[in-house]
Amino acid sequence: MGAAVPASEPAFGGQPLDRADHLRTDPKQLAALQAGGRLLKLDALVPELDADGRLVWGPVDGIDVELVFLGLAEGRAHFAAVPDEGNDDPAYAQRPIWGLLGRLPADDLALYGTARSVLDWHARHKFCARCGQPTRFAKGGWQRDCVACGAQHFPRVDPVAIMLVEYPDEFGGRLLLGRQARFPPRSYSALAGFVEPGESIEDAVRREVFEEAGVRVGEVRYIASQPWPFPSQLMVGCLGIGESLELAIDTTEIEDARWFTRAEVAEAMAKGSDSTSFLAPPRQAIAHHLLEWWLEQRP
Amino acid sequence: MGAAVPASEPAFGGQPLDRADHLRTDPKQLAALQAGGRLLKLDALVPELDADGRLVWGPVDGIDVELVFLGLAEGRAHFAAVPDEGNDDPAYAQRPIWGLLGRLPADDLALYGTARSVLDWHARHKFCARCGQPTRFAKGGWQRDCVACGAQHFPRVDPVAIMLVEYPDEFGGRLLLGRQARFPPRSYSALAGFVEPGESIEDAVRREVFEEAGVRVGEVRYIASQPWPFPSQLMVGCLGIGESLELAIDTTEIEDARWFTRAEVAEAMAKGSDSTSFLAPPRQAIAHHLLEWWLEQRP
Repeated sequence: MGAAVPASEPAFGGQPLDRADHLRTDPKQLAALQAGGRLLKLDALVPELDADGRLVWGPVDGIDVELVFLGLAEGRAHFAAVPDEGNDDPAYAQRPIWGLLGRLPADDLALYGTARSVLDWHARHKFCARCGQPTRFAKGGWQRDCVACGAQHFPRVDPVAIMLVEYPDEFGGRLLLGRQARFPPRSYSALAGFVEPGESIEDAVRREVFEEAGVRVGEVRYIASQPWPFPSQLMVGCLGIGESLELAIDTTEIEDARWFTRAEVAEAMAKGSDSTSFLAPPRQAIAHHLLEWWLEQRP
Repeated sequence: MGAAVPASEPAFGGQPLDRADHLRTDPKQLAALQAGGRLLKLDALVPELDADGRLVWGPVDGIDVELVFLGLAEGRAHFAAVPDEGNDDPAYAQRPIWGLLGRLPADDLALYGTARSVLDWHARHKFCARCGQPTRFAKGGWQRDCVACGAQHFPRVDPVAIMLVEYPDEFGGRLLLGRQARFPPRSYSALAGFVEPGESIEDAVRREVFEEAGVRVGEVRYIASQPWPFPSQLMVGCLGIGESLELAIDTTEIEDARWFTRAEVAEAMAKGSDSTSFLAPPRQAIAHHLLEWWLEQRP
């Protein structure tokens, strides 16, 4: 059914816990589960890793902070504590934490990503956007309620359209990739942008590609999705068919964009930093997965 | 490329305006554009319609409120004014406004949906979630900035996974549909739920179907997406393959769920309220579009 996808799923997805959402509304059961529960060891939002490069868990007892209920595994409840401060710096993903994350196995990465997104949201949403009064931790950490006006607030998930743009030709097609000024030298990746109110995913793909590179996109095809916890994106990976090769780059959004041949993409994906054409996005990024998919689809 | 999709796109998508995002950061140009601009006529969030059932626009001059810049068409700027109060009542979609929206052509529906989502967000986000102080309208209405801590806030778009679950069999497959207590009698529709932090779209489909109906889902395929402005959902429509027929319904979330044969789905879609099997979702809902797609894919 449908198109073949690479065996590997994008990083951060694939949930190892049963989120057991019926327990979120049951404070008594949640309190009872804390007794034998496991608490994720974090320094603010940075995970502690053991010698095998796995997340470290401790006992929950005696913790006097807001505890997010992450879910159940092997009959035990998993929790994470809300830190005093969040981190909304997008460049954070480039910092030392990134080395730690590269060592985590897929299930730990998914767990950490979930915890990080929800904890960061709590730390940065202590007040009610409607009336300005304090909000209170609710539903095991999956909600905050205003103490004054009663408004309910839910963790944000911000959908982002991220797209390969293909110009079909006799050489197996060319791909439009771009780079931001903050990228490492020679790095190119998929164009991307937040889906705005009033847009379908397909609308957002067409708008972003035209805004950033001046290329009109016709057909749009969904490929894969990925939660991205810096701080709370849902990356929606697509392939768009470009209708022309001419570029008009908006340098306020991206530093450069170029069409790459299939051979150049294949070389960059195979050789990593030794590639002579460009540096491909890192393995954890859905853009890497999209490029893998494209090479498999267009052999 | 990819699977065939029905000729009709889901309602509320397909953007008739050039959002011209580069103008959002240019207050002088935005002010100049107001002179010849068009203002959407609304009573709070309810649109005014003319005799042909189209949105009504007036001049912008002299309006002393926050004006959201919706975009350009035929060289003219389009605006909408932020009302004093928003509306986060999900049942709102069932009320008289729904009759008005049924009369709007597709391009007006897309415009109204965008305006409604952004205006409602402004009305309910006058304060900073980080520090509780007032926020200020910014970037032509696509941002609010905290006057105290400087935090930037963006309109919410909340992704929702909405899915047909198919159990393949020799009769052309059966579909799992459910109903909420607030639905009109005999109405069944696709199961749905918000994508949570740390989940891919596929993760969310599998979790929701198991939570609500007790059915494990294997393969998940994306079908179509739709912006849904009550208040700001991005509906992501999928098909999931169910691995068993046995149901365990969570009656705190849905009132009922049932497997329907292909013949029952075809009858409900063809006969509307005269159907003897069930009442299909209304044309504006992406669930309607998904059912159309499914019948075309499984002739």
